[in-house]
Amino acid sequence: MDKFSFLHPGMKSHFSDRFVTRISDCLGWYKEGMSGDVGLIGLPASKSSITPSHSSGAPQTIRSCLNSYTTYSGERSKDYKDLRILDFGDVRIHPTNLDETISRLYISVKEMLEVRACERYVLLGGDHGVSYPAIRAFQDHYGTVGVIQWDAHHDVRNLEDGGRTNGTPFRSLVESGHLKGDHLVQVGIRDFSNAMKYHEFAKDHGIKVYTMGDVEQTGIVPIVKKEVERLSKITNIIYLSVDMDAADQAFAPGCPAIGPGGLTSRELLASVSEAAKHEKVKAMDIVEVDPAVDFRDMTSRLAAHVMVRFLFL
Amino acid sequence: MDKFSFLHPGMKSHFSDRFVTRISDCLGWYKEGMSGDVGLIGLPASKSSITPSHSSGAPQTIRSCLNSYTTYSGERSKDYKDLRILDFGDVRIHPTNLDETISRLYISVKEMLEVRACERYVLLGGDHGVSYPAIRAFQDHYGTVGVIQWDAHHDVRNLEDGGRTNGTPFRSLVESGHLKGDHLVQVGIRDFSNAMKYHEFAKDHGIKVYTMGDVEQTGIVPIVKKEVERLSKITNIIYLSVDMDAADQAFAPGCPAIGPGGLTSRELLASVSEAAKHEKVKAMDIVEVDPAVDFRDMTSRLAAHVMVRFLFL
Amino acid sequence: MDKFSFLHPGMKSHFSDRFVTRISDCLGWYKEGMSGDVGLIGLPASKSSITPSHSSGAPQTIRSCLNSYTTYSGERSKDYKDLRILDFGDVRIHPTNLDETISRLYISVKEMLEVRACERYVLLGGDHGVSYPAIRAFQDHYGTVGVIQWDAHHDVRNLEDGGRTNGTPFRSLVESGHLKGDHLVQVGIRDFSNAMKYHEFAKDHGIKVYTMGDVEQTGIVPIVKKEVERLSKITNIIYLSVDMDAADQAFAPGCPAIGPGGLTSRELLASVSEAAKHEKVKAMDIVEVDPAVDFRDMTSRLAAHVMVRFLFL
Amino acid sequence: MDKFSFLHPGMKSHFSDRFVTRISDCLGWYKEGMSGDVGLIGLPASKSSITPSHSSGAPQTIRSCLNSYTTYSGERSKDYKDLRILDFGDVRIHPTNLDETISRLYISVKEMLEVRACERYVLLGGDHGVSYPAIRAFQDHYGTVGVIQWDAHHDVRNLEDGGRTNGTPFRSLVESGHLKGDHLVQVGIRDFSNAMKYHEFAKDHGIKVYTMGDVEQTGIVPIVKKEVERLSKITNIIYLSVDMDAADQAFAPGCPAIGPGGLTSRELLASVSEAAKHEKVKAMDIVEVDPAVDFRDMTSRLAAHVMVRFLFL
Amino acid sequence: MDKFSFLHPGMKSHFSDRFVTRISDCLGWYKEGMSGDVGLIGLPASKSSITPSHSSGAPQTIRSCLNSYTTYSGERSKDYKDLRILDFGDVRIHPTNLDETISRLYISVKEMLEVRACERYVLLGGDHGVSYPAIRAFQDHYGTVGVIQWDAHHDVRNLEDGGRTNGTPFRSLVESGHLKGDHLVQVGIRDFSNAMKYHEFAKDHGIKVYTMGDVEQTGIVPIVKKEVERLSKITNIIYLSVDMDAADQAFAPGCPAIGPGGLTSRELLASVSEAAKHEKVKAMDIVEVDPAVDFRDMTSRLAAHVMVRFLFL
Amino acid sequence: MDKFSFLHPGMKSHFSDRFVTRISDCLGWYKEGMSGDVGLIGLPASKSSITPSHSSGAPQTIRSCLNSYTTYSGERSKDYKDLRILDFGDVRIHPTNLDETISRLYISVKEMLEVRACERYVLLGGDHGVSYPAIRAFQDHYGTVGVIQWDAHHDVRNLEDGGRTNGTPFRSLVESGHLKGDHLVQVGIRDFSNAMKYHEFAKDHGIKVYTMGDVEQTGIVPIVKKEVERLSKITNIIYLSVDMDAADQAFAPGCPAIGPGGLTSRELLASVSEAAKHEKVKAMDIVEVDPAVDFRDMTSRLAAHVMVRFLFL
Ligand SMILES: [Ca+2]
Ligand SMILES: [Ca+2]
Ligand SMILES: [Ca+2]
Ligand SMILES: [Ca+2]
Ligand SMILES: [Ca+2]
Ligand SMILES: [Ca+2]
Ligand SMILES: [Ca+2]
Ligand SMILES: [Ca+2]
Ligand SMILES: [Ca+2]
Ligand SMILES: [Ca+2]
Ligand SMILES: [Ca+2]
Ligand SMILES: [Ca+2]
Repeated sequence: MDKFSFLHPGMKSHFSDRFVTRISDCLGWYKEGMSGDVGLIGLPASKSSITPSHSSGAPQTIRSCLNSYTTYSGERSKDYKDLRILDFGDVRIHPTNLDETISRLYISVKEMLEVRACERYVLLGGDHGVSYPAIRAFQDHYGTVGVIQWDAHHDVRNLEDGGRTNGTPFRSLVESGHLKGDHLVQVGIRDFSNAMKYHEFAKDHGIKVYTMGDVEQTGIVPIVKKEVERLSKITNIIYLSVDMDAADQAFAPGCPAIGPGGLTSRELLASVSEAAKHEKVKAMDIVEVDPAVDFRDMTSRLAAHVMVRFLFL
Repeated sequence: MDKFSFLHPGMKSHFSDRFVTRISDCLGWYKEGMSGDVGLIGLPASKSSITPSHSSGAPQTIRSCLNSYTTYSGERSKDYKDLRILDFGDVRIHPTNLDETISRLYISVKEMLEVRACERYVLLGGDHGVSYPAIRAFQDHYGTVGVIQWDAHHDVRNLEDGGRTNGTPFRSLVESGHLKGDHLVQVGIRDFSNAMKYHEFAKDHGIKVYTMGDVEQTGIVPIVKKEVERLSKITNIIYLSVDMDAADQAFAPGCPAIGPGGLTSRELLASVSEAAKHEKVKAMDIVEVDPAVDFRDMTSRLAAHVMVRFLFL
Repeated sequence: MDKFSFLHPGMKSHFSDRFVTRISDCLGWYKEGMSGDVGLIGLPASKSSITPSHSSGAPQTIRSCLNSYTTYSGERSKDYKDLRILDFGDVRIHPTNLDETISRLYISVKEMLEVRACERYVLLGGDHGVSYPAIRAFQDHYGTVGVIQWDAHHDVRNLEDGGRTNGTPFRSLVESGHLKGDHLVQVGIRDFSNAMKYHEFAKDHGIKVYTMGDVEQTGIVPIVKKEVERLSKITNIIYLSVDMDAADQAFAPGCPAIGPGGLTSRELLASVSEAAKHEKVKAMDIVEVDPAVDFRDMTSRLAAHVMVRFLFL
Repeated sequence: MDKFSFLHPGMKSHFSDRFVTRISDCLGWYKEGMSGDVGLIGLPASKSSITPSHSSGAPQTIRSCLNSYTTYSGERSKDYKDLRILDFGDVRIHPTNLDETISRLYISVKEMLEVRACERYVLLGGDHGVSYPAIRAFQDHYGTVGVIQWDAHHDVRNLEDGGRTNGTPFRSLVESGHLKGDHLVQVGIRDFSNAMKYHEFAKDHGIKVYTMGDVEQTGIVPIVKKEVERLSKITNIIYLSVDMDAADQAFAPGCPAIGPGGLTSRELLASVSEAAKHEKVKAMDIVEVDPAVDFRDMTSRLAAHVMVRFLFL
Repeated sequence: MDKFSFLHPGMKSHFSDRFVTRISDCLGWYKEGMSGDVGLIGLPASKSSITPSHSSGAPQTIRSCLNSYTTYSGERSKDYKDLRILDFGDVRIHPTNLDETISRLYISVKEMLEVRACERYVLLGGDHGVSYPAIRAFQDHYGTVGVIQWDAHHDVRNLEDGGRTNGTPFRSLVESGHLKGDHLVQVGIRDFSNAMKYHEFAKDHGIKVYTMGDVEQTGIVPIVKKEVERLSKITNIIYLSVDMDAADQAFAPGCPAIGPGGLTSRELLASVSEAAKHEKVKAMDIVEVDPAVDFRDMTSRLAAHVMVRFLFL
Repeated sequence: MDKFSFLHPGMKSHFSDRFVTRISDCLGWYKEGMSGDVGLIGLPASKSSITPSHSSGAPQTIRSCLNSYTTYSGERSKDYKDLRILDFGDVRIHPTNLDETISRLYISVKEMLEVRACERYVLLGGDHGVSYPAIRAFQDHYGTVGVIQWDAHHDVRNLEDGGRTNGTPFRSLVESGHLKGDHLVQVGIRDFSNAMKYHEFAKDHGIKVYTMGDVEQTGIVPIVKKEVERLSKITNIIYLSVDMDAADQAFAPGCPAIGPGGLTSRELLASVSEAAKHEKVKAMDIVEVDPAVDFRDMTSRLAAHVMVRFLFL
């Protein structure tokens, strides 16, 4: 038998410390029959973005940032090294037919749910357009879904002007009946970043809206805590949808639609932690990270940390 | 008649959503006889800067960032889409004669005020040197002017060592009598960023100085609120002068004189909002943004948002 | 009448030298009834790109680079300051429906040709996918078209795998009969950058292919000269299609598909000059410049210079 | 005698203002027999870093950032212009023998202490590996040393897996007996950034650990104040070891191991100020700044400001 | 059995064209018993570099750039899609013991050769220090080795001043007798980039030196052709050692020791092609690419193309 | 006596090889009474630039790039390690008075020449505006001066439109009679980069103009050789004025006015070498390098190499 002393074809050659478990060590490719704790899927679609975006590159970058995190929480004195994350890979998208892409995203999330390999799921966009097919798939599988959306924007634009862009997912979901208005909570909505018409759409459909002004006044954690509690009573599962542009541009400089006056990294992480710990929270997507314009993958690192707060309870 | 289906020579071809009014939609070039709500002028001069600066490029970049903002405030449930901003363009500066440049800035602001087309004005620098001719023009037109200056620095350097640089505008104004010391308020002054002599000059002339320590202790909004109130009683109009380096380098990485320990974007925006809403506040300049060294126009975006908080009351 | 001394609302405030005519001074927006020498149109479409691309931003950047060039050729002791360029603006593209976008490009180029305002045309992409509708429009208007294509790639991929991407324009044109194989000349084709199948497609359809090896041996100018001569005898007009990735990555670092071993800037400019001077050459497109990944707009500057060589004969 | 009017060979030619004392003006090269207030030494070693790092470049960059700071504190109305900083230069490191480098660092710090020219010292890394020889030298010279470490990480990795890396300094110090466990305080430790084993090592050896959760709850200044007080009673001197990655990546984007959820610049500066003012605090190192990956020297500027807070009491 | 429609866990989800074979498609991880055409090994060591270098990252980046190249040469009308490249992975290096690292590199190359799976080999550095253990291993395995070295530098520095750095590999090889002086050819040596002493060392030991002046006069291809011919008669195998800094900084901006006046990309590629086609040429290393300081992986792309010219004959 | 083992306060701590002499080792600050081979002076003025420029930073950056070059020429088998370069430092410029700055530059160059410490001189700009006072000082000191100017531009703009900018130095010199038209040779002049009026000015005054077309046809070395020969017969000394934008943007990406179609690095270096070796060539300035926009100091490295070719004959 060949025996190489310092070569391991097919394996990373990075330095490793025998006592450190990296989150990437918990990750393995899904194979038939496997079961695990959390399913991971990449939804690398960003051609529906209104502004220039290569957020299709984010699933790969965020995955590689997981290598920077360990499985240990000192705050809770707890090591999560036994958590098993099954990676279903990235959906193959169509280069020119965007409707076909949405359809593939829906089918793929559905197929992943149907193998029932895991209890909870992380979905990595892509732009926010991916939440439309994704949440639809969850609704079809689990029944009534509640959604907490971290976002500077309502994302309920009309579809006539540009079709199903990344500005429309929640419009589509609410109008198609896959998501009831009062099952949707929006946190971090920013002034001078939305249209009156869409704010009114939100109010008219009973969407619960919390602005940065609300966050400033009461803190974001109490808001999220209260709404998760409320949703948990009227929905089967809760789905977190994290548009990274909810964070201030200083903390998430790699989002396509960056701007000032948003959440700090600590506010974002604490509020996701708060939400994730409720047992009805079964899924989270992370969207709108464009690695091509980021600084040192800072935004992908933050996204990976958001994911970590969802993974380990 | 020619009819093009998808071409509109002379107009932007960007995606537009029928329900969204962008701030850039409120902007039009001033033409004789027009009147509007806010006058906008560019003061693209930065050759007087002590440290390297291309802040002369900021008027163009900040204007283009206005395209990222809408006219709607969700906090106030109010759409400002009818506000009319008249753009007077940029002052043509002289490439080698800096005194001539200062003179042109003064004359141009004066001429803009004299057509009395608007009630309120935004002036986009350029370096802080532009505030000297600008405030002088306002004083000549309106009489006694009060100034709130957001800045890490006093800007009251002596003129012997380098002439009228961007470190001297308030020295010049106070010494020439165009601005009384106690009509000037400085907020955000940082430790180890100024000289004792100039702090003493400020105290000796009755300039009201608030350091970052003061901001940390009492919050910036109460400081600004109190001082606007005070100034409103002793001056005809109040002029806000926002040196973007008052913000921490994490939030305004594109200022020539960046440094740590400054304001967050939320502190800056909230305090400008607070000031702007007083009816005596008639003008604001925004200075010291150098687009050439910025990251993704982050500092220009913040500057544009500062402008937004002044525009919409 | 208002008279501003140094303000000209709506006009650039840059330094100007009374004896210098910039190419941008020759440019004006097309208005009904106008006629000029060269028509300019922007085709800002890049969502059909296989690899990530924001070449949709190029029309704007290349236009602004025209400001760096004057109208004077010292080599020929000739000033072209009277050339009149009519700018038809940019085609408004659809954010999610790419077939609709192709259709709009075709219609817009067609409509531009139909007003017969100019004799010659420059079309600014966008990715290479724009050449399919553009050349189709020229063929419909002028009859038989010959094409000289500067490119590292054949661009004759199959359409089954991804639809009408930027890798397919010449496949589509040849198969649809809008362009005869031997009316197409490809210069600068690079080794290990194409598939055998597509080289065979080229040969089978009589496309004339010149590789970098050919360029190295005989020089690019003689190749282009000979082929323009040949095409001029068998076609009504000749259309130049310049994929900027024909240039070596050192000279055009901002193309999506950069690579080494390509043309120098001097080879590219000289060969375009050579081609443009033939009277049958009526149009040129310039494609595959992505300003978002460029260094100091270097690739847009080169593209603008390529355009200059076409403009001034 | 030669008299140049505007040339001063060997001196900087920057603009200077007669009333401004820059911190760099307080700095001079140490020469035999000199005495001063603070000794400065560069420890430009980063080849022991686990992840890629050129933090060896930091001593030079941080020194040059001192030029941006003045000696005046407005908060305290005090000018420190008479403080004398003696610069001992940078230790010459060995390019390939890392043990030799550690030995040179130890010897050099020791030799600096032995000339007894100053009362207090600043040491500029390099990576955190430099703290092992540095603190050892202080312990040999002063006897019992207490350490406050700002860091996201424990830095108590095992030495078997990679030798004496930048992840091991405090392990080495504690195990070798140069530092007692309860003489070490770690502030800013972050979740999912450390291994359980090492947290246990810390607890087992009595190291005092404060996480970001602790900072969020009680504020960082009270923590530091309490611990300096405690250490001052049981040690001869206190040494501050500031790993800049304790700061959030938004505030210190140039650290090799950046990440979200850390200290703000204001928290970092205030807590260092608090610590430094105790008379037993005699030394500070600043480590893990990599100028090669920073944005506009932002992290070096923050490091320089941290240094300023130690210098001026 | 699970059947996913658009998911393939463990496989890339990139767009693929059925007729395109990418070089990455020819690559597979070596497994025991396999045989192939070319063996590939990564030597990710750069801590021995004199100037700052993260060329340890190059094996990963160059491999990923292979994805940009196809297997087809139009110049030769030949498709190399059946070539089989066995990837032995990267040698695991030691973080702090550089002698141990050299030893691991030697052992690993040796072990790779001993499984006799391939006829020819590509070795990806790392800095030029890796050539010392690598060539030693080849000499031990094959007997007398001839070397053609593309480089701006002689790399025959003394070992006393810094140990076995990246400036010493050929000194070590010649002095240890593993490489006879006249079995070594250096091409591209640049003026004012080397010391007289080392030029003399080269001459004294019979090393064949060709400067950029020689390249300018006679062309690089004839030089390489002649020397391969000569070496082929006196050695068992020929090993190409390509230090990418032989190329001009415009073509290889990502080398640690960039400079002007070097080879163009076309000169480099043509000369490697010329050398590689001789049957005695069995191995090539590519060194001194630092992806951390490169522009758009330009230098890694060039390196990958150099590799391609060696792979396909 | 203090003895530090590895510390040398005031000296660089870089790795040094005992056999390597770096050019920086030949440099020392001028002190009264010294004499040497070449005098070096920095002219850090760029506020007169028409387009944005921080070329005032170039003297410092180019000096530090000298550290990358050795004193040995392999082409000539000659070591120049005994050459002595006296550095007169940088002229202190005025921040706001540009006429004063020009006056200081003139006086400083004059004063340097008057101490007669050296035979030959290198002057580092700054923008091209510095050549006006510099050449004037040489003319005053040496009598008739001939100038070879490498440049894409004529630099003979009118002075009415913007005063004494970097576009006017040769206009000023010719009109003031300090430089006769036929004593000025311009090489590398580019098409569409100049105005007809200024080309005519050149011709009318007998300036010898060589375009890039001339360079392409006959090679640049013969042109320079012939003109140096000619000038040497009709002038006392010859002064080389190297505007780095004569090089193509691929080779000199850090010039303010970059563009394609220029000289390669090898053409530039070879032609400067050719000129410098004539005994009448006594001075060279290098201008228009802006380190603030460069890539990895590539342009400063090229500038330093240009300087090297002048230094060593
Ligand atoms: Ca969204
Ligand atoms: Ca959003
Ligand atoms: Ca200021
Ligand atoms: Ca300021
Ligand atoms: Ca193409
Ligand atoms: Ca192409
Ligand atoms: Ca540490
Ligand atoms: Ca750390
Ligand atoms: Ca080498
Ligand atoms: Ca080398
Ligand atoms: Ca010039
Ligand atoms: Ca020039």
